[in-house]
Amino acid sequence: MPSEFIRRRRVEFADTDAAGLIHFTALLRFMEETEHAFYRSLGFSGYWRTEASVTGFPRVSVSCEYLAPLRYGEEVTIRLLVREVRAKAIRFEAGFSVERGGGSITVARGEMTVVCATRRHGEVEWEGVEIPTELERQLEVAASSIPRPRREPSPRADPPGR
Amino acid sequence: MPSEFIRRRRVEFADTDAAGLIHFTALLRFMEETEHAFYRSLGFSGYWRTEASVTGFPRVSVSCEYLAPLRYGEEVTIRLLVREVRAKAIRFEAGFSVERGGGSITVARGEMTVVCATRRHGEVEWEGVEIPTELERQLEVAASSIPRPRREPSPRADPPGR
Amino acid sequence: MPSEFIRRRRVEFADTDAAGLIHFTALLRFMEETEHAFYRSLGFSGYWRTEASVTGFPRVSVSCEYLAPLRYGEEVTIRLLVREVRAKAIRFEAGFSVERGGGSITVARGEMTVVCATRRHGEVEWEGVEIPTELERQLEVAASSIPRPRREPSPRADPPGR
Amino acid sequence: MPSEFIRRRRVEFADTDAAGLIHFTALLRFMEETEHAFYRSLGFSGYWRTEASVTGFPRVSVSCEYLAPLRYGEEVTIRLLVREVRAKAIRFEAGFSVERGGGSITVARGEMTVVCATRRHGEVEWEGVEIPTELERQLEVAASSIPRPRREPSPRADPPGR
Repeated sequence: MPSEFIRRRRVEFADTDAAGLIHFTALLRFMEETEHAFYRSLGFSGYWRTEASVTGFPRVSVSCEYLAPLRYGEEVTIRLLVREVRAKAIRFEAGFSVERGGGSITVARGEMTVVCATRRHGEVEWEGVEIPTELERQLEVAASSIPRPRREPSPRADPPGR
Repeated sequence: MPSEFIRRRRVEFADTDAAGLIHFTALLRFMEETEHAFYRSLGFSGYWRTEASVTGFPRVSVSCEYLAPLRYGEEVTIRLLVREVRAKAIRFEAGFSVERGGGSITVARGEMTVVCATRRHGEVEWEGVEIPTELERQLEVAASSIPRPRREPSPRADPPGR
Repeated sequence: MPSEFIRRRRVEFADTDAAGLIHFTALLRFMEETEHAFYRSLGFSGYWRTEASVTGFPRVSVSCEYLAPLRYGEEVTIRLLVREVRAKAIRFEAGFSVERGGGSITVARGEMTVVCATRRHGEVEWEGVEIPTELERQLEVAASSIPRPRREPSPRADPPGR
Repeated sequence: MPSEFIRRRRVEFADTDAAGLIHFTALLRFMEETEHAFYRSLGFSGYWRTEASVTGFPRVSVSCEYLAPLRYGEEVTIRLLVREVRAKAIRFEAGFSVERGGGSITVARGEMTVVCATRRHGEVEWEGVEIPTELERQLEVAASSIPRPRREPSPRADPPGR
């Protein structure tokens, strides 16, 4: 399994605002769309229904840094990384890039933590539940295959082999 | 009861698009918001929940004509008229106007038909149901207080009774 | 050239509302997205910029009939037809369908008229302009290739050849 | 000038999603709407136009923590605080609360940093510019009137004056 899930999405006219650029909330929608496409790629859904209940992945936190503007018609590549898997929660990171002037530039970086939550039919409240076992297993594989940032070797007074 | 329900709503930045004007779908959202504010003014809601079910007013048709542009920051006045009340459906008309250059100009005109529909908890399908009696009564009062376009008396060569 | 332009689009979570179905405005966004994808397929854009101005296709009217619900995760097929091409305006029709229970069912039907409009840099107002010649030519080919609804042969007292 | 700017906003039907709650991006729109209402209250706008250019406040970062669900029809109170004013940027904090069961509960907390940016007519790129002097002055008053979290007096071995 690859260490990141990749999706491409065009900036549609309805995603823009009067500044002529993408509205900042659109990238956060793209991040959720990519997360849900990732679940589908694993045989799951971002929201499903059984006889007894509905289950989904509400966000408990999101953040995004906007580094460069995005314009109508551009195609954004969204790379989603699973950073941490807990019993009931998943932390994702996302990188957004476009091809411009022959190279790829990063236009935004985001992060979000979602919880697995269920609401029984006829009830009002959602409550956190454990991520389905098979999905959790696959998420952990994805998380563990992310190359960790390499640790700079610590300077040593005595170089090895001397 | 007045023959129309009036609401004011500012064009927010997220309502605009790269053309520098309001996105066309925003006015349709404003129309739904005004309809729901109208129900609230009558003591009802646009979507409510009981022990057994949820009830709301999905649209079965909408239309809108755009006559003049709307820009960020402008305040739109939305006038909602009840045109027709049936057992399970309501037909509304809406006029959108702004104050400009000392006068009020109409920027758009819309129409929508909504049905009253219910979904029992644990079920998937919505089904049309009768509008709650007290709401229907009030809607009919609103509908009947709209001044009908006056019919021009048709010219007759021979006056009656001659 | 085919008589219709077809695009598939999944119903994303952000497209739904508390009724558990797609929000009615989402289908109107899908209609615009399909129109813009159609322009791209012809080598044009839904919004472009030159040294002197920006040009796009604001809507002057839209309408939509909602025939059956759409849910999160479903894939909608949008079929766009060019119904009429005028010097500065285009009238489109759209059919929305999904695959369910082994067959394709129509969930909505829409219509919209857009005008070609330009705003010179530094000015505020948009004004209608003629559709670029090459785009207009291609749109007319698309419009003329739509199979017209067949006229029922009118009943005749005397059948031919008698 | 009060140390916070307060705005109330109802959760509209189009703000909700299939989980029956407000979609997470809606609160971020409310945060921007409140920021723009705050500028208006100071005699400025969130986006304005002169002979030479347009100026606005694009976000360079946003974040939000979701603490409790929000439902259709609820009225949210958004409290906006100016946390830091720099020559070209402003950092805001926002608290979102609703009245429930006789008390006010915090449902979300957000933060965003916006920059003042200008695009000259006929150009494509936006560039950061200094915040208009009078606006900056008022923002600094707002920022300085926020009660700072009290610093715990640091324990001292030797009391002063000894």
